[in-house]
Amino acid sequence: MNNWEQYVRKVTPYVPGEQPNSTNMIKLNTNENPYPPSPKVLEALSGFEADRLRLYPDPTASELVQALADYHGVNPENVFVGVGSDDVLAMSFLTFFNSDKPILFPDITYSFYDVWAELFRIPYQRPELNADFSMQLSDYYQENGGIVFPNPNAPTGLLESISAIEDILAHNKEVIVIVDEAYIDFGGATALPLLQQYENLMVVRTFSKSRSLAGMRIGYAIGNAKLIQYLNDAKYSFNSYTMNQTSLALGMASVLDQEYFEKTCAQIIETREWTKQELASLGFTFPDSKANFIFASHPDNPARDLFAALRKEHIYVRYFDKPRIDNYLRITIGTKEEMQILIDFFKDYMK
Amino acid sequence: MNNWEQYVRKVTPYVPGEQPNSTNMIKLNTNENPYPPSPKVLEALSGFEADRLRLYPDPTASELVQALADYHGVNPENVFVGVGSDDVLAMSFLTFFNSDKPILFPDITYSFYDVWAELFRIPYQRPELNADFSMQLSDYYQENGGIVFPNPNAPTGLLESISAIEDILAHNKEVIVIVDEAYIDFGGATALPLLQQYENLMVVRTFSKSRSLAGMRIGYAIGNAKLIQYLNDAKYSFNSYTMNQTSLALGMASVLDQEYFEKTCAQIIETREWTKQELASLGFTFPDSKANFIFASHPDNPARDLFAALRKEHIYVRYFDKPRIDNYLRITIGTKEEMQILIDFFKDYMK
Repeated sequence: MNNWEQYVRKVTPYVPGEQPNSTNMIKLNTNENPYPPSPKVLEALSGFEADRLRLYPDPTASELVQALADYHGVNPENVFVGVGSDDVLAMSFLTFFNSDKPILFPDITYSFYDVWAELFRIPYQRPELNADFSMQLSDYYQENGGIVFPNPNAPTGLLESISAIEDILAHNKEVIVIVDEAYIDFGGATALPLLQQYENLMVVRTFSKSRSLAGMRIGYAIGNAKLIQYLNDAKYSFNSYTMNQTSLALGMASVLDQEYFEKTCAQIIETREWTKQELASLGFTFPDSKANFIFASHPDNPARDLFAALRKEHIYVRYFDKPRIDNYLRITIGTKEEMQILIDFFKDYMK
Repeated sequence: MNNWEQYVRKVTPYVPGEQPNSTNMIKLNTNENPYPPSPKVLEALSGFEADRLRLYPDPTASELVQALADYHGVNPENVFVGVGSDDVLAMSFLTFFNSDKPILFPDITYSFYDVWAELFRIPYQRPELNADFSMQLSDYYQENGGIVFPNPNAPTGLLESISAIEDILAHNKEVIVIVDEAYIDFGGATALPLLQQYENLMVVRTFSKSRSLAGMRIGYAIGNAKLIQYLNDAKYSFNSYTMNQTSLALGMASVLDQEYFEKTCAQIIETREWTKQELASLGFTFPDSKANFIFASHPDNPARDLFAALRKEHIYVRYFDKPRIDNYLRITIGTKEEMQILIDFFKDYMK
């Protein structure tokens, strides 16, 4: 080690998931939306006034924030936007989880939570999910420095009920509780109504899944004004101008096209339910997903083998070589045609 | 204070500079480029394949990184990209300034350095610049946890020589030294050749000034491969997908159009030198700027008054109400026509 390395913050490098980029592939590995973004987004892109590129964007993202506030029936003071929900969550970990007590999140969950905790030196504990992947609520009654979990959970797809979330909130009024609703638009009930009663609740959303804008990196949080203000104070102290001009314009256009949004979400839900039936008839088991993916296991065919076999056919799904979930595939819901090809492959493979 | 606020990281909110947005204004307050980005950038925007928006961007930004590596004659392993140089610098503070010893930066400098230090709880000292705003090199010989300064400095515009920078490096081989070259393309000599000899040096650049892309938020750093790897490890642990699809495409297009870049930089330098002559003949004094702004003071007209008078005419410049610099205006170099209007205003005002 060189001397100058002595004060470097060393973290175990997080390796981003594979992003294959071949033609004719079927990409069901990163929970992207199979449909393009709203035609209004494409209009906003083609009509973008190029001279604005030389000017700094609005640091407050006021138009996008207002559009989101209107969409959710809250005030602009209740909305924070960031460069994808990862940016929103990273900034939230930095801002809210500033205690010596461990924060809590499930042992099987979004793989970034422990990465942020390690980066910011936040102590954490990971209560084990039940065998059916549901949360053991009493695990979250212990003293802690904050709580975060996705709902529906990733990679399981399992949705916790509003009463389960309220139970956790009722037991944790002293800390911030973050509900990461990246996948809520695919049929789950949102925790947003609980904001009326619990000012320590923050709900996080993303444009990457249900709004077909993974490529633009837009996420947001909704919470009480004081909490959002703390988050903005930290954000403005990190990078004032995070959202670029095109993100602001395209994000706005997406929020304003409710009809297209509802139509494509409904299509994905329909395809998901069809895929569940097909997978079940092939002998797969899976939690009853309310997300845009299915977390499936087969009694006779190891997930690792299926993953490798699919890959050979340029069908990409996600496999996690981790305890408790190393016999599951996380399969993103693509178009009906893509899912048909996947199912046909399984039928052929298991003949 | 509510109970849930107990573990919140509270920072003094940084208030982003004013971003007026009226028609017919002359905006010389945030060091934006008066010229639009390269026509190649506009082509990349209008030709952007919209279906890519639904897919995650390349987390390694490999094409943009390669283009920058080629441009600077280094390897891709030597290049880090981020959401503006603010993102690059914030991530660098988090990664590299992880000591109990104070980091060092000048008392008059980019106003974000102390904000990042406060955010990440990094101790810091601010050695005073000399009366002529040059750095007192011996101030940087003391034990420290790292060093950062812009060259040319902001808001003074003053350039330190390569030998001055090398002197600082020679006295500080134990820590990371960051040279923030946001304004280097307007006539300064870069510290990049020093990378051969000093592996603790990192040079930071931005697309916001010389590349007319403030609205897209693109910045980068160049340093030795190990240092860049540490930075990437931290970055991937914060947000894997920071650069969105449009930033990657437009940034690439900008780097590849060297001719337009050189032409517009030369135009700004020419206008700056003309503006210096005009300001001098009006009695203004200023450091000999090598940036795209001039930091000017007038013996008979308080900067505060000039700022207010200009504002009334919708001419926006920057005024800092801070010790030692509260009688200066930071005037961004606009088009020749804009600077003529500014000079005409001063002539009229001082009649």
